Amino acid sequence: MNIVITGAAGFLGKKLVKALLAKGSLLNRQGQMQNITKITAFDIAPLAGIDNPRLQVVCGDISNPAELANLINEQTDSVFHLAAIVSGQAEQDFDLGMKINVDAARQIMERLRALPQRIRLVTTSSVAVFGGNLPDKVPDDQVWMPQSSYGTQKAMNDLLLSDYSRRGFLDGRSLRMPTIVVRPGKPNAAASSFASGIIREPLNGEAANCPVSTDTRLWLMSPDKAVAALIRGHELDSEKLDQGRVINLCGLSVTVETMIGSLRKIAGDDVVARISYQPDQAIINIVNSWPGDFHADYARRLGFEANASFDEMVREYLAEKDATA
Amino acid sequence: MNIVITGAAGFLGKKLVKALLAKGSLLNRQGQMQNITKITAFDIAPLAGIDNPRLQVVCGDISNPAELANLINEQTDSVFHLAAIVSGQAEQDFDLGMKINVDAARQIMERLRALPQRIRLVTTSSVAVFGGNLPDKVPDDQVWMPQSSYGTQKAMNDLLLSDYSRRGFLDGRSLRMPTIVVRPGKPNAAASSFASGIIREPLNGEAANCPVSTDTRLWLMSPDKAVAALIRGHELDSEKLDQGRVINLCGLSVTVETMIGSLRKIAGDDVVARISYQPDQAIINIVNSWPGDFHADYARRLGFEANASFDEMVREYLAEKDATA
Ligand SMILES: NC(=O)c1ccc[n+]([C@@H]2O[C@H](COP(=O)([O-])OP(=O)(O)OC[C@H]3O[C@@H](n4cnc5c(N)ncnc54)[C@H](O)[C@@H]3O)[C@@H](O)[C@H]2O)c1
Ligand SMILES: NC(=O)c1ccc[n+]([C@@H]2O[C@H](COP(=O)([O-])OP(=O)(O)OC[C@H]3O[C@@H](n4cnc5c(N)ncnc54)[C@H](O)[C@@H]3O)[C@@H](O)[C@H]2O)c1
Repeated sequence: MNIVITGAAGFLGKKLVKALLAKGSLLNRQGQMQNITKITAFDIAPLAGIDNPRLQVVCGDISNPAELANLINEQTDSVFHLAAIVSGQAEQDFDLGMKINVDAARQIMERLRALPQRIRLVTTSSVAVFGGNLPDKVPDDQVWMPQSSYGTQKAMNDLLLSDYSRRGFLDGRSLRMPTIVVRPGKPNAAASSFASGIIREPLNGEAANCPVSTDTRLWLMSPDKAVAALIRGHELDSEKLDQGRVINLCGLSVTVETMIGSLRKIAGDDVVARISYQPDQAIINIVNSWPGDFHADYARRLGFEANASFDEMVREYLAEKDATA
Repeated sequence: MNIVITGAAGFLGKKLVKALLAKGSLLNRQGQMQNITKITAFDIAPLAGIDNPRLQVVCGDISNPAELANLINEQTDSVFHLAAIVSGQAEQDFDLGMKINVDAARQIMERLRALPQRIRLVTTSSVAVFGGNLPDKVPDDQVWMPQSSYGTQKAMNDLLLSDYSRRGFLDGRSLRMPTIVVRPGKPNAAASSFASGIIREPLNGEAANCPVSTDTRLWLMSPDKAVAALIRGHELDSEKLDQGRVINLCGLSVTVETMIGSLRKIAGDDVVARISYQPDQAIINIVNSWPGDFHADYARRLGFEANASFDEMVREYLAEKDATA
């Protein structure tokens, strides 16, 4: 198997590279387990810190068709397309979001279409496609009504990937990710950045601000579960995708209060005391438009899994932190 | 009021030009009735047969940005964007559909964004955005799952128009049209073309084929009601659009059998005998993926209207035929 990962230097990308190298094999389109012979890790930023003979690190821009033509070629079996402009930045810079999240994604699909072999494409969508009058628990057949440019762009991409798959140009799967928490490292430009920040920063002895009301309900998934979902999404037989190529993943529905409660239980009052509560209306507006709970029946039927509790998610972060310390 | 209509030589476009010239005024964005001083009728094909000092006919291609820049300018108040590659052709020629239904539509929105005034944009979407497991009667919050490239392209356009409106780049409204029946003239490349053909051709002494089962349920609207909906869509105060910029219009839900029954009642057995029943699997696949009935609560609340019966639709066609004979 010859695999290309875009956005490979990003948070999920880097974890996926490691997981695939550790796993060593994937199902091919004929349903046979095949050794992974090559992973090309593509990103504007260089992926550092992983050394493996099967890994090739390439720096480049997915919005450059010539670079894409080199990257994805007759030898490519599967593409994990993770490069994106995240929600906060796509809202600030509309044109950049359109260029990367829509046009470059379409160029990737065009490249797959131009090649003779049917390539599997796994990409990520977001709950930011939802908005408007929503039921408390969103069903799989809920209309998309994005309240942000990021959500709009992800939904456009979902539509295109579905049509490219229907026409046989590629074999696509778009996984609609819950918010991934606890994300290690620094805050990013995603509107959901605080959801990791209010756990991560206090655990690292730093202050963090919670910009939304503590009764805000979030739909979450841990990094390990997200990477497992990307691999599961790749392995699914296309025959099984009888409700389409876009899958609302299973997640854990919790309030910010419950999240802080887990932190208190695991790390104590002193740690929780590092959280401040200054509302930020821009973030409130975006986050409140995202649903906090989903049925995700299709994903469950397809064998995707959610985290059992928020405690589990805090512990996953602490274990990872210890391992890399 | 200075109005631009794209696709003005098409079926709905030409009817809209006539209706606007007859009406003579439209509400501006401040809610005041204003005289229509100029209508620019833009189309690849020339609009012929309407002579009016307020009408300027321009031949051009909406996929040409330079032509768009001339067409839509500082004087433009409203754009009715109707030019499109219809369903059958968009399915046959994927790239042409993307170029006109997505890229050119986006260029129009970019042009509106570049101008200082907030321009009202009225465009049409289609029930072809729906598909998959559908309830018998589709609610307004039903997910979009297009089973055709045309439906995919219309849905992408709906998403963009909503985001451009939300960001204040323009003041958009996308009207999700039922199938328009009885369409005068010749059959076209739309998969729904037969729905007019089985009424129109027999009434004109010609043979027509019904390629789908007679228990197929269709969601229909007459041409007059469609033009009234375009004007209503333009006149709505943007404050009222509290469930978004994309509106599933009200229509009439009938089976092909009921349609043929109306034809029999109005025109007799001999006329109905001109219909043959050769199934066409390509058309069946597309048409069966479209829902045959909708709640359309939002549209009703916004004051849109459906036809009362299929008899009314046949009679509208006969009256129009007599008037132009
Ligand atoms: N983390 C979450 O909570 C979450 C939730 C839903 C969806 N997603 C999606 O999952 C994917 C991965 O998310 P992440 O959290 O790892 O994001 P990230 O920002 O950490 O990684 C994205 C990577 O894409 C790269 N990139 C951006 N533009 C590029 C370009 N033009 N060419 C090449 N590389 C480019 C960036 O350098 C970055 O390394 C994204 O598509 C994101 O939208 C993430
Ligand atoms: N008639 C229906 O049943 C129905 C239903 C749903 C939606 N719609 C939509 O309503 C709109 C009008 O439909 P219609 O039935 O009048 O279609 P039509 O095919 O009669 O008219 C479309 C017009 O667009 C013009 N056009 C195509 N490409 C162009 C280009 N590149 N530049 C300039 N003009 C171009 C064509 O010349 C044609 O005159 C379309 O967007 C259609 O998709 C129609």
